[in-house]
Amino acid sequence: MTSSPFGAVPLTPTSFLDRAASAFAERPAVVGEDVELSYRELLQRCERLAGVLAELGVRLGDVVSVLSPNTHTLLEAHFGVPWAGAVLNALNTRLSVPELAYIVEHCDARVLIVDHELERVGAQLADGRPDMILVVAGGSDDGYEAALTKASPTRIEVSDEHQLLALNYTSGTTGRPKGVMYSHRGAYLQAIAMSAHTRLAPSTVFLWTLPMFHCNGWCFPWAVTAAGGTHVELRRVDPQRIWAAIRNDGVTHFNAAPTVLTSIAYGPWADAGPSERPVSVMTGGAPPSPALLARMAALNLHVTHLYGLTETYGPAVICDWQPEWDRLDDAERARLKARQGVVNQIGIPLRVVDENGEDVRADGQTLGEVVLRGNNVMLGYYRDEDATAQANAKGWLRTGDVGVIHTDGYLELRDRSKDVIISGGENIASIEVEQALAAHPAVLECAVVAAPDERWGEVPHAFVVLQPGATASEDELIAHVRHRLARFKAPKRVVFGELPQTGTGKIQKFKLRAALWPEDRSSSH
Amino acid sequence: MTSSPFGAVPLTPTSFLDRAASAFAERPAVVGEDVELSYRELLQRCERLAGVLAELGVRLGDVVSVLSPNTHTLLEAHFGVPWAGAVLNALNTRLSVPELAYIVEHCDARVLIVDHELERVGAQLADGRPDMILVVAGGSDDGYEAALTKASPTRIEVSDEHQLLALNYTSGTTGRPKGVMYSHRGAYLQAIAMSAHTRLAPSTVFLWTLPMFHCNGWCFPWAVTAAGGTHVELRRVDPQRIWAAIRNDGVTHFNAAPTVLTSIAYGPWADAGPSERPVSVMTGGAPPSPALLARMAALNLHVTHLYGLTETYGPAVICDWQPEWDRLDDAERARLKARQGVVNQIGIPLRVVDENGEDVRADGQTLGEVVLRGNNVMLGYYRDEDATAQANAKGWLRTGDVGVIHTDGYLELRDRSKDVIISGGENIASIEVEQALAAHPAVLECAVVAAPDERWGEVPHAFVVLQPGATASEDELIAHVRHRLARFKAPKRVVFGELPQTGTGKIQKFKLRAALWPEDRSSSH
Repeated sequence: MTSSPFGAVPLTPTSFLDRAASAFAERPAVVGEDVELSYRELLQRCERLAGVLAELGVRLGDVVSVLSPNTHTLLEAHFGVPWAGAVLNALNTRLSVPELAYIVEHCDARVLIVDHELERVGAQLADGRPDMILVVAGGSDDGYEAALTKASPTRIEVSDEHQLLALNYTSGTTGRPKGVMYSHRGAYLQAIAMSAHTRLAPSTVFLWTLPMFHCNGWCFPWAVTAAGGTHVELRRVDPQRIWAAIRNDGVTHFNAAPTVLTSIAYGPWADAGPSERPVSVMTGGAPPSPALLARMAALNLHVTHLYGLTETYGPAVICDWQPEWDRLDDAERARLKARQGVVNQIGIPLRVVDENGEDVRADGQTLGEVVLRGNNVMLGYYRDEDATAQANAKGWLRTGDVGVIHTDGYLELRDRSKDVIISGGENIASIEVEQALAAHPAVLECAVVAAPDERWGEVPHAFVVLQPGATASEDELIAHVRHRLARFKAPKRVVFGELPQTGTGKIQKFKLRAALWPEDRSSSH
Repeated sequence: MTSSPFGAVPLTPTSFLDRAASAFAERPAVVGEDVELSYRELLQRCERLAGVLAELGVRLGDVVSVLSPNTHTLLEAHFGVPWAGAVLNALNTRLSVPELAYIVEHCDARVLIVDHELERVGAQLADGRPDMILVVAGGSDDGYEAALTKASPTRIEVSDEHQLLALNYTSGTTGRPKGVMYSHRGAYLQAIAMSAHTRLAPSTVFLWTLPMFHCNGWCFPWAVTAAGGTHVELRRVDPQRIWAAIRNDGVTHFNAAPTVLTSIAYGPWADAGPSERPVSVMTGGAPPSPALLARMAALNLHVTHLYGLTETYGPAVICDWQPEWDRLDDAERARLKARQGVVNQIGIPLRVVDENGEDVRADGQTLGEVVLRGNNVMLGYYRDEDATAQANAKGWLRTGDVGVIHTDGYLELRDRSKDVIISGGENIASIEVEQALAAHPAVLECAVVAAPDERWGEVPHAFVVLQPGATASEDELIAHVRHRLARFKAPKRVVFGELPQTGTGKIQKFKLRAALWPEDRSSSH
């Protein structure tokens, strides 16, 4: 309608690095075991990375995959890859080679940057794609660093904020991984919302416990940079290292799944006493238990519960704390804190709908499916119009998650999308595991459901009916799946016998789950 | 490039009220002397206001003016007017009737909502515009409330985020007021940036000391709502009332010019002791003096310095505090805090340019004009292409402010270009002289302007207000400045007495100059 001569500048999260390098040039941007980069240096390295990619022939809209733990290399890719005009595809380091091969094939990755610890996996992937260029980062023969040193700084400015910024593959609930498309605009807005809600500032010291390959680290590579805080590298999610960072590096914030929090909250390193300064901890994937919340608080680690999906750039929903709740007793506060909450500041109010798409009553009782809409909902699934259409309920994203709206407007999930197993913060699609099992010649029918696990929260548990006359042992079937999928997706137990079915032949998974879960918990599954 | 089926929803700051009413329906949105509204009620009232306007014949793109102190009515207009598809024009209550008449004429206001305290002014304005509908809010014959009660809720969703949202008239420095055009997108982004930088949350209790008619209150009507905080009405900027709110209403945040802070920091109400809880105070318009900063901190009122223009939706620049600075001594911290700072999280790095438009050296010494660009820079001046073109330097907004970039990237203003004193061919930044004066313990407030001089062309001339009970002679203050600055920068004269101020607390230097200059010269300053 009206255009501004002073710039309706396209929204892109890479602009946060321009601000940081201008405002905080000499402040620490990244601190790691053997690296320390100022914001001036980080900007220069990201512009050189764009130069490297341009020299390798990467063109506008090409995909660059990165397979790396939480290092500065992966952080740099969040700025340098878009500055080459390319699309960032951060790969889940826990996936098996066939799964990774499917992804780099599906998104037609032109370049794969691989951390030296994963060099063998990278070589296997490159074997299958002769045209894909492999760049190894770190280690004794650091090709990434060598290329950076020689490269000319470059950057392609984004012209359309709705342009594709990143592809994050999610196993979702059915079969093959789907490539969730993030736009520059969506990531920009989500990053600002994360900055606002978690109160990031130049004084922030952010520990990278959450994998950056997971929803682009909930957009925190950009959010922490927007605020001019410091990123602390963490190659491995190890409670000893995390506590060392909390005690020695001045950590103020970190994000992690409740299973990771459990590993932090208990054990010899936690027993050494609480953090000197309060630490803000964001958690999602499963509600933190009252015991865990109390233990964390005693350690001066203050937990906020979030909810989101890969499809929503990470946390679309936050359990925004109301000051009146401070006056409640511990049990009541834990109950409120375990709810998923309300949409974040840039969100459109979420809805919980019945099978006809009508809003359910906000009575804390009536179940419905959570649907979301807005600027922090994905563009769609990459090259998969069918899956995008299936997720679309009249412009609202179907989450597959079932919950209730409380009378105060807060969402509480009651049933994770019934087929998904959340193990150590990772989604495992039960169907995917079932398909792997079913590929074994002795298997006639099978069902995989979540079983409770002290360490991982949930683990896959298989129920199998064998072909008449066939034989197979539990260990054999587990090995069979491990051969095909990431190790963490393989069932921990296999039970043989009949499967309960509905009249129309659908397997009644809720009955299988009921056998595995304590009474009070099974009802929520 | 790619369009999302799940909504690239237009950015509009009215959406923050949808979030708040969904997430915090029963929490206090507005608290005032005789009003208390929950977010549910505020939403309903704003939708009814849109209904009232529609019934009065207001159509898409029409202008609705509001003349009111900081009441819930003016807050409601920030949502209800856009929901009628109309453009909000909040009028400066300190302007004269002819000035206001010029504005409502220029923007062709269809409706004028006027607070009952200003009913007489409203009637005079309506006399001159027979087609403009006058609605009186508050008082014994509350037309606004009566209309609201009868109206049907309505709203027109914004279809284009670049659409005109608000017109804020600025007198600038010369001639007629100019209508600064704000877009939905710009106000949305600025509001989120304000929320992030000032750490707004549901626990925020925001006191309305800053006039909402001033840059739409720096976009805080939307920012506080985005966070779900509570707005505290304040009809008059009166230190007694402000202290009552701080002590009794749990205020956590307020914004005000340094002259207002001075009135808060000294006097009997301040002497009653510090605030029980820390209060975040944002100030702009002039750098806070070290004495004021120290006094405020002792009162548990913690000041952040900001800089912006009506043309930049309020604070485009913020003195973002770096944790390393905590270790410096008081004087050094005050010096750093008095700098204007760096662009806010949504900003494009600012530039300081010479007369050829080239960036000056970032050496803390070389003067240049500050230019700004980005999503929080205005669409332009309403119906004034010439003025818009004059402000435009190749896509950058000319601020008319003269400053330096320090080696660490922080901006420090040295003067308005028109306030620079040219003495014997040397430029003297009046602010530099003022800061030297303000360092004298007896000085409460001061202003330095150019006086005519036969020999030097211009010489600095100081106007000073002393601390209550303090004494200092003219010679003593001149000697004090000579001790700190080059001799030629010291005032030739010092006059003691009140300083003329604008409605927003800015010292009106042009009035001081007018007293010193013959008629023809003063007008050019």
